[in-house]
Amino acid sequence: MAKDQLTPSRPDAFAALPRFSQDPAELELVRTDRSGFVPPTLPDGVVQAESVQDVVETLRVANRHRLPVVPRGAGTGLAAGASARAGEIVLDVHQMNRVLHIDPVEQTAVVEPGVLNAELNAAAAEHGLFYAPDPASTAICSIGGNIATNAGGMRCAKYGVTRESVLGLKVVLADGQVLVTGAGTIKAVTGYDLNALFIGSEGTLGVVVEATLRLRPVPVATATAAAYFDDVESAAAAAAAVVAARATPSVLELVDGPTLGAIDAATGTRHRSRGEAFLLIQTDGFGAAIERDVVLGAIEPFTRAVQLPADEAATAALLQARRDAIPSLERLGRTSIGDVGVPRKRLAEMVAGIQRISQETGVRIFTIAHAADGNLHPIIVADPDEPITTGAPKEALGRMFELARTLGGTLTGEHGIGLLKQDWVEAELGGLSRELQHRIKQALDPLGILNPGKAI
Amino acid sequence: MAKDQLTPSRPDAFAALPRFSQDPAELELVRTDRSGFVPPTLPDGVVQAESVQDVVETLRVANRHRLPVVPRGAGTGLAAGASARAGEIVLDVHQMNRVLHIDPVEQTAVVEPGVLNAELNAAAAEHGLFYAPDPASTAICSIGGNIATNAGGMRCAKYGVTRESVLGLKVVLADGQVLVTGAGTIKAVTGYDLNALFIGSEGTLGVVVEATLRLRPVPVATATAAAYFDDVESAAAAAAAVVAARATPSVLELVDGPTLGAIDAATGTRHRSRGEAFLLIQTDGFGAAIERDVVLGAIEPFTRAVQLPADEAATAALLQARRDAIPSLERLGRTSIGDVGVPRKRLAEMVAGIQRISQETGVRIFTIAHAADGNLHPIIVADPDEPITTGAPKEALGRMFELARTLGGTLTGEHGIGLLKQDWVEAELGGLSRELQHRIKQALDPLGILNPGKAI
Ligand SMILES: Cc1cc2nc3c(=O)[nH]c(=O)nc-3n(C[C@H](O)[C@H](O)[C@H](O)COP(=O)(O)OP(=O)(O)OC[C@H]3O[C@@H](n4cnc5c(N)ncnc54)[C@H](O)[C@@H]3O)c2cc1C
Ligand SMILES: Cc1cc2nc3c(=O)[nH]c(=O)nc-3n(C[C@H](O)[C@H](O)[C@H](O)COP(=O)(O)OP(=O)(O)OC[C@H]3O[C@@H](n4cnc5c(N)ncnc54)[C@H](O)[C@@H]3O)c2cc1C
Repeated sequence: MAKDQLTPSRPDAFAALPRFSQDPAELELVRTDRSGFVPPTLPDGVVQAESVQDVVETLRVANRHRLPVVPRGAGTGLAAGASARAGEIVLDVHQMNRVLHIDPVEQTAVVEPGVLNAELNAAAAEHGLFYAPDPASTAICSIGGNIATNAGGMRCAKYGVTRESVLGLKVVLADGQVLVTGAGTIKAVTGYDLNALFIGSEGTLGVVVEATLRLRPVPVATATAAAYFDDVESAAAAAAAVVAARATPSVLELVDGPTLGAIDAATGTRHRSRGEAFLLIQTDGFGAAIERDVVLGAIEPFTRAVQLPADEAATAALLQARRDAIPSLERLGRTSIGDVGVPRKRLAEMVAGIQRISQETGVRIFTIAHAADGNLHPIIVADPDEPITTGAPKEALGRMFELARTLGGTLTGEHGIGLLKQDWVEAELGGLSRELQHRIKQALDPLGILNPGKAI
Repeated sequence: MAKDQLTPSRPDAFAALPRFSQDPAELELVRTDRSGFVPPTLPDGVVQAESVQDVVETLRVANRHRLPVVPRGAGTGLAAGASARAGEIVLDVHQMNRVLHIDPVEQTAVVEPGVLNAELNAAAAEHGLFYAPDPASTAICSIGGNIATNAGGMRCAKYGVTRESVLGLKVVLADGQVLVTGAGTIKAVTGYDLNALFIGSEGTLGVVVEATLRLRPVPVATATAAAYFDDVESAAAAAAAVVAARATPSVLELVDGPTLGAIDAATGTRHRSRGEAFLLIQTDGFGAAIERDVVLGAIEPFTRAVQLPADEAATAALLQARRDAIPSLERLGRTSIGDVGVPRKRLAEMVAGIQRISQETGVRIFTIAHAADGNLHPIIVADPDEPITTGAPKEALGRMFELARTLGGTLTGEHGIGLLKQDWVEAELGGLSRELQHRIKQALDPLGILNPGKAI
């Protein structure tokens, strides 16, 4: 086949790639993420990068040969952002997993991208510090993936999302050049905010190979409560009442009855016997106990029962129950995990709308939510032999996006667009915004080799 | 003169501009900001925009005629970002100054760009809310200017800078198209973070004509203290001790002895009789009083005296003293206000270095700092007939930037680059970062008409 711009000389390219494998068993492991989407074909190969130099060489080769590259962290994404197919290679950085430095005085950490979120938190804890963004997948997702998706989590209610905890990045650009963004200081406004440009860009603008992160002191005190409700609308109304009461809980998580049932079934707990919806509440800081009481006062009119955990173990169990939600649902069938956001006061309306959409489409939908941010995860569960990204589930997903938009919301609060949500991006952003985003993509990756077809 | 691409047909252009004036008295008012820099010539004219439509028309005309446009808010900038000269026109939006909407339940505000920071806070206060970013210039600076500079302030120690409080923007692009960025939700990750791209871009990428902002509940309690020290190094060390004690004060402001003297002279206070340096400390939230005591415990080894204000009036007077710092120094001569940032633990070194640079260059330098963020404002004061942006002052400025960089810092924490700091940008960012920034500029403003020569 003649070599030309559109037909890359792949064998040449492949031979030049470091730590490259085409072993089908390995390819099977990196073809997709946790979104439920399975690409029709296997990718052409995978680079298991162990160093910045590996990433640089890979992108140099890919750029020269116009080889599409799919960056990959831990593969826990929920938008098919790391999914790869024939014609593409995967650039897997999960083995670049060292915590390079923790500065306990400055309260910063420098890490490689493959470090797992929980690993960083464990390292920080030795110094009385923590890394705030805590996806429920903390034990299995990577910091690089968190940055590429601008991941959220339970504590974002008070501490903000990944963007608020990233001070600087080292990024390998599409052509293999190494860019350093940000600064070693809390505040810096020299030039445009390139940190923020890469955060949430889903591997389409560059590959994150190092990050300087902000840590925070472990709060002197935390106070936790579990509140149970007759129905999920009451729980959503209670969450809105917390915001209106001007409290700032560090955790305010909503779980609906069916999901409680799934958690109970999977883990042997008995949450659903106490109510048809659940709010997990945590306050922290010097006034944690007082603030919890304010929160409990605000939600009192809505609750059926409130439980205060007796000790640390009971507190940890409550947090774990929330983290168990998605894995418990995954035991019931194939899942598709939505991520809509609405203005906080519209939470109850969105919850009611999800139930209506479930009834009308006949699709099973479970709901959990980062309630203080108005960020809901409606989780579609289908039988193992049923489609999950097409047919009725896709119809339900589309209607949920539409509803979120009608309520002034967004189609993704923290998981990203990936491949899965492409159909709805234009409706949210409008043509001009998309055009600008493509101009920015073009400015940074003129050949379009980085994660093509994803994100924007 | 022949019309061609490089020689705009200005009379045609001017005739087509809305609310356009060439009155020299008006031009005098909009030729510069509060940086001390005076452009050599007057701008060609000024548009006093009263509506989005005025801004759209102005940019359409400017784009068609390749007319350089300098966006302008309240003109309180400290980097000559809003300075304009012959060949340029000023697009002044300070008359677009309506608070369009406050949503007390959702805790958001929608405002026009000319609204003053203090005006927004007054409007929010009626609902028990506040807008967190609070430059010392709160009474005189505009929200549009705050967004264009990513302004900071006293409360950023706890609540983050402007970027953390902006949910969405309406921006008129260089060609007059109107772009809406962000979302009406706390979290949203659809597409690249265009909000962040415009925030801090100093009017070089678009003109902000509307902003949706996050408000926060006024804390249930605040606790304030004033600590006095024998010297500024002790105060800096005390500030580092606060960070190390894992407290999160909402305000931690450092003022050195000479500045205290200037404030006393200007306002009749007697701060300098109590010490040669001053820390203003405020904690807030449900545990405010407890947290203040923790802070006071941490700094106790360093202090000469501590004062707890007796009532709200005394508290307000302490905050006002800090806000009076720059105006008080402006009475002493021409000022040039630095804005370096360093890692928080290097604060004492930076403070000592500034004193050394002052001695060695013979330039008078006063220092105040947002200590919790490691953001210092070394303020050069020169006699009215002396240069302030050239000669010895520029030499001192350059040496302070150099020192900050050596300490792992930045040349601007919150004021921006404007025209004034152009000489030092490359050293901080490096060539690749600058090149990328220029590619982004090119993607958004291909003709380069928006605030040319500023920021990047
Ligand atoms: C049980 C469960 C619970 C979850 N809970 C949450 C939650 O609470 N909040 C939340 O935000 N998410 C949650 N997620 C989603 C997921 O964990 C996050 O999106 C996470 O940030 C993905 O990280 P990863 O390392 O697995 O990335 P991957 O899935 O490997 O990749 C995700 C995207 O990032 C890109 N990418 C990865 N690494 C890099 C890199 N180094 N440089 C450039 N691009 C890169 C990929 O190309 C892809 O587009 C959950 C997932 C599961 C399975
Ligand atoms: C006494 C004093 C104290 C100060 N204290 C602080 C402080 O604590 N923290 C801090 O961060 N700053 C401080 N500043 C600096 C200044 O107030 C801020 O930079 C402020 O954000 C500038 O707002 P402005 O409306 O005056 O903007 P201007 O000076 O009019 O413009 C500043 C820049 O923003 C651009 N711009 C203005 N409006 C728009 C718009 N609508 N769209 C696009 N671009 C626009 C201009 O082109 C220019 O580049 C202080 C200044 C003074 C005089």
